[in-house]
Amino acid sequence: MFPAVEGVAPAVTAVFTAVLTEGPISRVALARRLGLSSAAVTKAARPLIEAGYLEELAATERTGPGAGRPASPLAVCADREFFVGVKITGDELIGVVCDLRAQVRTSAHRRLAGAGVDHVLTELDELVDDLLDGFDRGRARFLGLAVSGDVDHSTGLVRYSPFLRWRDVPLAERAEKVTGLRVTVENDVKALTTAEQWFGEGVGADSFALVTVGAGIGCGLVVNGRIVSGAHGVAGEIGHIGFDVDGPDCHCGSRGCVEAVAGADAIVSRARAITGRPELTFDDAVSLARAGDAPVDAAFARAGTAIGAGIAAVANLVGPARIVVSGEGLSAYDLFEPHIRASFQRQAFGAAAACPLSIRPLPFEEWARGAATVSIQALVAS
Amino acid sequence: MFPAVEGVAPAVTAVFTAVLTEGPISRVALARRLGLSSAAVTKAARPLIEAGYLEELAATERTGPGAGRPASPLAVCADREFFVGVKITGDELIGVVCDLRAQVRTSAHRRLAGAGVDHVLTELDELVDDLLDGFDRGRARFLGLAVSGDVDHSTGLVRYSPFLRWRDVPLAERAEKVTGLRVTVENDVKALTTAEQWFGEGVGADSFALVTVGAGIGCGLVVNGRIVSGAHGVAGEIGHIGFDVDGPDCHCGSRGCVEAVAGADAIVSRARAITGRPELTFDDAVSLARAGDAPVDAAFARAGTAIGAGIAAVANLVGPARIVVSGEGLSAYDLFEPHIRASFQRQAFGAAAACPLSIRPLPFEEWARGAATVSIQALVAS
Repeated sequence: MFPAVEGVAPAVTAVFTAVLTEGPISRVALARRLGLSSAAVTKAARPLIEAGYLEELAATERTGPGAGRPASPLAVCADREFFVGVKITGDELIGVVCDLRAQVRTSAHRRLAGAGVDHVLTELDELVDDLLDGFDRGRARFLGLAVSGDVDHSTGLVRYSPFLRWRDVPLAERAEKVTGLRVTVENDVKALTTAEQWFGEGVGADSFALVTVGAGIGCGLVVNGRIVSGAHGVAGEIGHIGFDVDGPDCHCGSRGCVEAVAGADAIVSRARAITGRPELTFDDAVSLARAGDAPVDAAFARAGTAIGAGIAAVANLVGPARIVVSGEGLSAYDLFEPHIRASFQRQAFGAAAACPLSIRPLPFEEWARGAATVSIQALVAS
Repeated sequence: MFPAVEGVAPAVTAVFTAVLTEGPISRVALARRLGLSSAAVTKAARPLIEAGYLEELAATERTGPGAGRPASPLAVCADREFFVGVKITGDELIGVVCDLRAQVRTSAHRRLAGAGVDHVLTELDELVDDLLDGFDRGRARFLGLAVSGDVDHSTGLVRYSPFLRWRDVPLAERAEKVTGLRVTVENDVKALTTAEQWFGEGVGADSFALVTVGAGIGCGLVVNGRIVSGAHGVAGEIGHIGFDVDGPDCHCGSRGCVEAVAGADAIVSRARAITGRPELTFDDAVSLARAGDAPVDAAFARAGTAIGAGIAAVANLVGPARIVVSGEGLSAYDLFEPHIRASFQRQAFGAAAACPLSIRPLPFEEWARGAATVSIQALVAS
């Protein structure tokens, strides 16, 4: 896929990745950054320039006092290749096309009548056709899919996705047959984390965490410069850190987990019990709390406290440079933000409390962009 | 210190580290393992052989079917250099001399009359002299010190050690002046973790965790092949993960932390409250529980449950390949082991429960060996 250069393949990947995530950047800075000689950088960059992935910008800066000649920074040619990213949920497909710099160029949604694999694949194929209308197909060869649950990224197998009720679906293989694209499948939280690591707040950070608040409480972790995958396939399960040994039962079989207190369902259940209204929705609970219903407000406060304790556990254990908190639960962020922050400060140990929490909304398309980012990585690794 | 070779320094370090931790190993296997060319491995190994750090073993094996000539594996010359390691506690210095393979060659203890820095340094100097008696001083140039608390490894500053009541002690600098050795200082749990990573159960593992049970509950983490240090100086604080929101106050300012329930002091306090005997010691509590005192036994059970929940949080978040549980608290392991295991199984999420827990005693000398290991790393990095 990528220009193959005998003997310097790792350098080609390293140079391309660094220009992609930190460019435009001069060869001198690249050499310093990567611990390579200038000759090695030049050798690695040449085939990437020839293949149209990198370009040399006009020389505009000197590399420093005493530097002999002006540097021509290397930059990525964003339009060299396009990437389709699709987030698959139980009732909808959300798709985007991104360029090589992970900028969204177009997007589209598609409602699903059900979550059966055949149906989803048929709809996926049509969505991809819609999305790529007007794009040169020869430059849009990659498709990234994001799915919640237990996903084997290396084989493209969805081992278990509770919301889709899928078990052992060879999704990459089946989606490749249907779409003709090279398909990469990743867990949705990891895909979002990859997008942050390569193109967001995680650029240049040796460690950071992305916490998603919504139906579930998830976490993507980058430690020592790489995404944490877990030797046994489990990592980032902040939702199943214990919060209250005497708390409510959790679907995982334990009790008092962060998610059993702070997941959207847990909040709704508690609000229904408090109000005695079994038909209450999450949005109803938000309205009641905002209108000053103290017991319902307390349910959000307790959820925020649990989330803050979970985030503090992340800070105490792995000490990320920063923590991004996002997710669809953020629509009600005013109700638990102060409790998240207070609980984090209380439970963070010593200097861990200095870890900045960056809190921001998460447009649903971001999940699809995360999926596209994972397919950009697939190009780079190929 | 180490043979300097223009342009290939990273390769020299990589080759030496790989032979040290995984050798004897052939050049072909090294090249494959490190992603280097055979020529680069040979070039990097040459100065190490010339300086006496590596040796070529007799050719005993072929590298595989079709391999033209027999391989001569590279091995470390264990006696090329010796390393002193000392663990400093509030009332004792524990010292060892290790060879380049981290084998303990001799050991010695020294009681301290107090934890004043001047006194400790005087005793340290005498202990080092005792330890190195009979060793060639020209081959014993490195000293590693392990201290509990907040240690800045890069500068050798002990920022805060609660047990020693030290604040901002420039320990490396002062110990170098006194002993004339090159001194490295590290947090004791991280030093132990380094020893496991280079010479123990962590060899070859991309991730693992070492949990220490005793006066405090500590944790060293290796993720993506490297020790986790924490961007804000805090990592591995498993003792301050929340366990019971309604639990006892913790010295960190929060409440219900793992350590507030499972630290040795917490167990003793609880046993004193239960029995109404304020003079009760930890050993007394152990004896009572072993003799069938149900309430005191329950205090150990609750401690084990808290430790198991903390270990599960580690498994759920970072998913290490294996977890080693050790520490001086292991003397009473029979009292909480089943509760640690049951609690871990209950709280570990899905496949995280498959993470093996390796439980074993920790001779106190191991701490000093950990300190020596850190000084082996200092040689390699120099």
